[in-house]
Amino acid sequence: MIKRIGILTGGGDCPGLNAVIRASVKTAISHYGWEVLGITDGFDGLIIPDRIFKMDLNSVKGILPKGGTILGTSNRGNPFKYPVKKDGKIVTEDKSDEILKNILKLEIDGLIVIGGDGTLNIAYQLYKKGANIVGVPKTIDNDLAKTDYTFGFFTAVNTATDAIDKLHTTAESHHRIMIVEVMGRDAGWIALNSGIAGGADIILIPEIPFNIEKIIEKINERNLKGSHFSIIVVAEGAYEKGKDKHYVEKAKNEGTLPRYGGISNYIASVLSEKTDMEIRTTILGHIQRGGSPTPYDRILASRFGVEVCDLIAQKKFGYMVNLVGTQIISRPIEESISKQKLIDPYGQLVETARRLQISLGD
Amino acid sequence: MIKRIGILTGGGDCPGLNAVIRASVKTAISHYGWEVLGITDGFDGLIIPDRIFKMDLNSVKGILPKGGTILGTSNRGNPFKYPVKKDGKIVTEDKSDEILKNILKLEIDGLIVIGGDGTLNIAYQLYKKGANIVGVPKTIDNDLAKTDYTFGFFTAVNTATDAIDKLHTTAESHHRIMIVEVMGRDAGWIALNSGIAGGADIILIPEIPFNIEKIIEKINERNLKGSHFSIIVVAEGAYEKGKDKHYVEKAKNEGTLPRYGGISNYIASVLSEKTDMEIRTTILGHIQRGGSPTPYDRILASRFGVEVCDLIAQKKFGYMVNLVGTQIISRPIEESISKQKLIDPYGQLVETARRLQISLGD
Amino acid sequence: MIKRIGILTGGGDCPGLNAVIRASVKTAISHYGWEVLGITDGFDGLIIPDRIFKMDLNSVKGILPKGGTILGTSNRGNPFKYPVKKDGKIVTEDKSDEILKNILKLEIDGLIVIGGDGTLNIAYQLYKKGANIVGVPKTIDNDLAKTDYTFGFFTAVNTATDAIDKLHTTAESHHRIMIVEVMGRDAGWIALNSGIAGGADIILIPEIPFNIEKIIEKINERNLKGSHFSIIVVAEGAYEKGKDKHYVEKAKNEGTLPRYGGISNYIASVLSEKTDMEIRTTILGHIQRGGSPTPYDRILASRFGVEVCDLIAQKKFGYMVNLVGTQIISRPIEESISKQKLIDPYGQLVETARRLQISLGD
Amino acid sequence: MIKRIGILTGGGDCPGLNAVIRASVKTAISHYGWEVLGITDGFDGLIIPDRIFKMDLNSVKGILPKGGTILGTSNRGNPFKYPVKKDGKIVTEDKSDEILKNILKLEIDGLIVIGGDGTLNIAYQLYKKGANIVGVPKTIDNDLAKTDYTFGFFTAVNTATDAIDKLHTTAESHHRIMIVEVMGRDAGWIALNSGIAGGADIILIPEIPFNIEKIIEKINERNLKGSHFSIIVVAEGAYEKGKDKHYVEKAKNEGTLPRYGGISNYIASVLSEKTDMEIRTTILGHIQRGGSPTPYDRILASRFGVEVCDLIAQKKFGYMVNLVGTQIISRPIEESISKQKLIDPYGQLVETARRLQISLGD
Repeated sequence: MIKRIGILTGGGDCPGLNAVIRASVKTAISHYGWEVLGITDGFDGLIIPDRIFKMDLNSVKGILPKGGTILGTSNRGNPFKYPVKKDGKIVTEDKSDEILKNILKLEIDGLIVIGGDGTLNIAYQLYKKGANIVGVPKTIDNDLAKTDYTFGFFTAVNTATDAIDKLHTTAESHHRIMIVEVMGRDAGWIALNSGIAGGADIILIPEIPFNIEKIIEKINERNLKGSHFSIIVVAEGAYEKGKDKHYVEKAKNEGTLPRYGGISNYIASVLSEKTDMEIRTTILGHIQRGGSPTPYDRILASRFGVEVCDLIAQKKFGYMVNLVGTQIISRPIEESISKQKLIDPYGQLVETARRLQISLGD
Repeated sequence: MIKRIGILTGGGDCPGLNAVIRASVKTAISHYGWEVLGITDGFDGLIIPDRIFKMDLNSVKGILPKGGTILGTSNRGNPFKYPVKKDGKIVTEDKSDEILKNILKLEIDGLIVIGGDGTLNIAYQLYKKGANIVGVPKTIDNDLAKTDYTFGFFTAVNTATDAIDKLHTTAESHHRIMIVEVMGRDAGWIALNSGIAGGADIILIPEIPFNIEKIIEKINERNLKGSHFSIIVVAEGAYEKGKDKHYVEKAKNEGTLPRYGGISNYIASVLSEKTDMEIRTTILGHIQRGGSPTPYDRILASRFGVEVCDLIAQKKFGYMVNLVGTQIISRPIEESISKQKLIDPYGQLVETARRLQISLGD
Repeated sequence: MIKRIGILTGGGDCPGLNAVIRASVKTAISHYGWEVLGITDGFDGLIIPDRIFKMDLNSVKGILPKGGTILGTSNRGNPFKYPVKKDGKIVTEDKSDEILKNILKLEIDGLIVIGGDGTLNIAYQLYKKGANIVGVPKTIDNDLAKTDYTFGFFTAVNTATDAIDKLHTTAESHHRIMIVEVMGRDAGWIALNSGIAGGADIILIPEIPFNIEKIIEKINERNLKGSHFSIIVVAEGAYEKGKDKHYVEKAKNEGTLPRYGGISNYIASVLSEKTDMEIRTTILGHIQRGGSPTPYDRILASRFGVEVCDLIAQKKFGYMVNLVGTQIISRPIEESISKQKLIDPYGQLVETARRLQISLGD
Repeated sequence: MIKRIGILTGGGDCPGLNAVIRASVKTAISHYGWEVLGITDGFDGLIIPDRIFKMDLNSVKGILPKGGTILGTSNRGNPFKYPVKKDGKIVTEDKSDEILKNILKLEIDGLIVIGGDGTLNIAYQLYKKGANIVGVPKTIDNDLAKTDYTFGFFTAVNTATDAIDKLHTTAESHHRIMIVEVMGRDAGWIALNSGIAGGADIILIPEIPFNIEKIIEKINERNLKGSHFSIIVVAEGAYEKGKDKHYVEKAKNEGTLPRYGGISNYIASVLSEKTDMEIRTTILGHIQRGGSPTPYDRILASRFGVEVCDLIAQKKFGYMVNLVGTQIISRPIEESISKQKLIDPYGQLVETARRLQISLGD
């Protein structure tokens, strides 16, 4: 019988984390009558369990609309390769057994792990070693395979769309090229969705390497039609066709490109040489990870938080919750994290963008 | 071969209508090379076709983020029972043949009809009489059966959630019962979703008739636990168990309840007699139908607008677009409008609300 | 020498209260090295001082953007006429001496009172009896005489303007009269400012009694010019010329008008008889008192919170802070609360509204 | 007698420009019965007057809540030193006489010029040469001397504060230094106001050159107190004490700092060397110039637009409108533009920031 559960959050920040925590705590305590332990700083909190605290309904009061996570997230990384100082050097150690021991010692009958690809992978490995773990998918990047959407994603899309909306008026009045850099290292979901929602002219995503000449072609075509401005939305992981995917990151490390500032600066530099239009860049950065989650994300997060408790009640350990259509279902964690969900360059959404006369830079 | 299409919008206002129009016009003109006629004021514009205009890309510039519809909607109702004055009296006439004739005369090869249940029903009847019609579902109420969601819905949920968020702080500081009345005559989707997103304590929906005693029970239970305030979200169509569904509307017509003001006033009156807490009501009204569509709704509307053109290109007349999971698909209009999508009182979303300790008033 | 101060908030809710508290606590502790006592529930907390707590910097962490007040406000009213139960009846008692005694007992060298007209009047009377009080003006109604603006006001104007913005699109598409009722019992500042900001057609304020015929005239004039909709913003305290100012409140008490629903319902009823346009009403209610304060209000509230500490340091008891132009100044509380600041019917702002072709209903 | 007026907007984009245009057009046509000419692209439109159009009430419908300017702004700069191509080279010519001639030819009896320092300076010189000009101050930077505030400023502050709000949650959860770069080349008003409103820890403004060591001191002090994150708001024109004010711009031109990316990148680079905390930068860029103006800015802009017409009616040419306290007054343009309004490093607002424990980096 389940008596006590634990909850932890791992990985990058994501609006909606608190809504999941709140829903799980409410369901666990009020519906199931379980005790709940809040584990701080992700898996770190199970390696050195000195900040674990008993949660009650007051612990989650007022957190539904708040960004961030009241539990904090892991900072030091993978417990299977945990960095520790030894003889003045940093080496890695496997701390997984300590986590298993602490779960036992704390008498946690079920552990809710809320995290992205990395965190859920660790969760799966711990589950295989015997931990009673259930998972909740989390990423603003929306690149987890088996769930239609993840909470946090549409909040990030809102922030990016709001920025594009604001650039529209000023771009129009001043005949400029406006570049907005949004998050998305491997997957361009935020760029593609906010670009469609904001009415961008050009959207550059990692899944479709771009060609500078095609970008200039589109800008010129617009100028000819009397639209003397263009808005480019670029995912941070977008890259030039024919080049190595990580040349910008490399150039930054080598110092030939500025360390703080991304692909948008590169594109701005090249375009400023090849056109005579003024160019302005906006780099949204971490504001995409913050702010109050949208109602969509609050609902999705709350549903995940409720349903994941049912997985514990049913002892479906090793499973995680997913959104499919309008229903929350569950699937083995292993299956859900087997591959990243990238944008299909020939799929419906890209095709929609093209029919709306948006250039993908290819 | 398709050469010219027409577009019209019918029924109540809904954020995202302009995004559909824009997407269809762009796709029709730039991708397919068709001509596009803008038909104003819904089917009225095909009965007296004096305000139809040729649309170009400029017609849809800047309308993506705007609420309302640049085409206007029908005001006089069903063309099969069209109200006309005859000998000083208002009688109804069947104007469907005039619509068919005008479609022919205007050489419209495909007609995009964007509307809710009522409008799409008319569209289906016209299709059966020979009109080349394709449909786009539209309702802020989210009660169309075959699509996971309709555009406009989440914008309305945002507006309602924002109001609930604002009431939270002041309810907490002042020990009050706050009642927010939201739209939803037959279906409680806006109430249920915004209530979950806003952290309401009690949600009253037409699908689950409420019991005033249960509401008071919940309020007292909260007081006992130290939460000296309660937030009630009520759909305009919610009603008391055992009473006729339309007793509030009847009472209004008979003058025993105020004409302008709804079920929230009724509940406030009863609660003020039965508790000694202060009560405040907010009636959101038509602000739920206005405002800039959220990115989610802009994207969904844009996708509908693109895909419905493909239906014309494929001559799938009598079909409409639907959202299923993450894909836009098409189905016969007949099938899509066969029944209203109400909330399942035993379904996952209601169950989620209950586990979050939200009372449904039953 | 000042060693310890107290803070309390009184009266209705107002966005920015927490920002004042935070600024005062930070200034008192970090700049002046004082101790700070948080007094809960307004003056009630000084009558029965069982919930007073010592505040530190952690007490005010994260509250700057939050609506409401972490200190709560008074619920039982004037301590000079404090309601108490005696022999089963409610009688009033003067509790001011108890407050003075408790201030002494708690060794409070300076007491910051944040409140509106009523609260500051009490503060002034307590000051005259010897209490070391300084004041911060607070009202969303903006009707305090000696300060250009109060925090909370522009947040309320934002909420109201946002509603008007949303009504615009749907009013335009559907040829309707939209009535928005906003706060303002005696002063129409919210109505006038949000009406100008939202582009209303008619603004009704308590300072200028309205004439229904003039409202209809304006609506007809708009119809003739092709604008088949009108937006009316009405302050809750607006009233018909020639009638008693409180006839709506009376009618509510007598039951001839609905208890929950205000002047907007009355106007809607009359207009629905005298025109054949459809009418919709929105009653914003307490959402105007909630929500995150705007940056303007956060800055003003923070400045008040800092400057009021300087008044204590300078022992300027009996003084309060005011905004004049871009500077925070101080004036005797007595002077500041001597009369209410109403809109001048012949002043610049009303004249601006008229030149923008807004009808004031007169 | 005034029969016909002209309106133009000059300089950088600023939310509220459309609200001024709308208010002036409404007042001119409906109140005074004047004709109004819309002059496109600033003074350029008076040099080559081929796009001037007659405005009516329809010209300004729906523009109140919209950013940008329907009239466009000047692109080519000062008409007294107008760049023209001659023999393949770009030389400058004085085009002021052509402007005067065109004003006469167009029979413009009064010209409303809406602009910042530069535009108003030109307006003043043209006035001295005989043009009947009145002015409206415009800048998001709030650095015009004789007006308490300019429209657009608080909209920019809102955008920046919103970004800081979003960074707060994620900074807290992840122990990071977050740097937000906002506009302000010479004056730090946006940085100081949004920094106070957003609860920043460090604010860097051009008026107070910063010292990197002091910044690090503040960050370390916060770490010691358990706040393992810091938010830095930096005006684009902030610079390091002892260095030339424009060293970043120079470094960019010389290629030793990235061209697209500003002072925030410089600070990030230095801090990343001197601390071991992770650093993230957000560069808001032109989104600060866009978006729907806040109600405050819409009201201020509308009042300016109305009052500047009164200046024409009174033939107070050479004057401009200003906000002083709660009133719109007028002053000679010459006087208003005589010096830039910088932040007083010893003034009340900076002192407020310091008492709130915000470091100014000095």
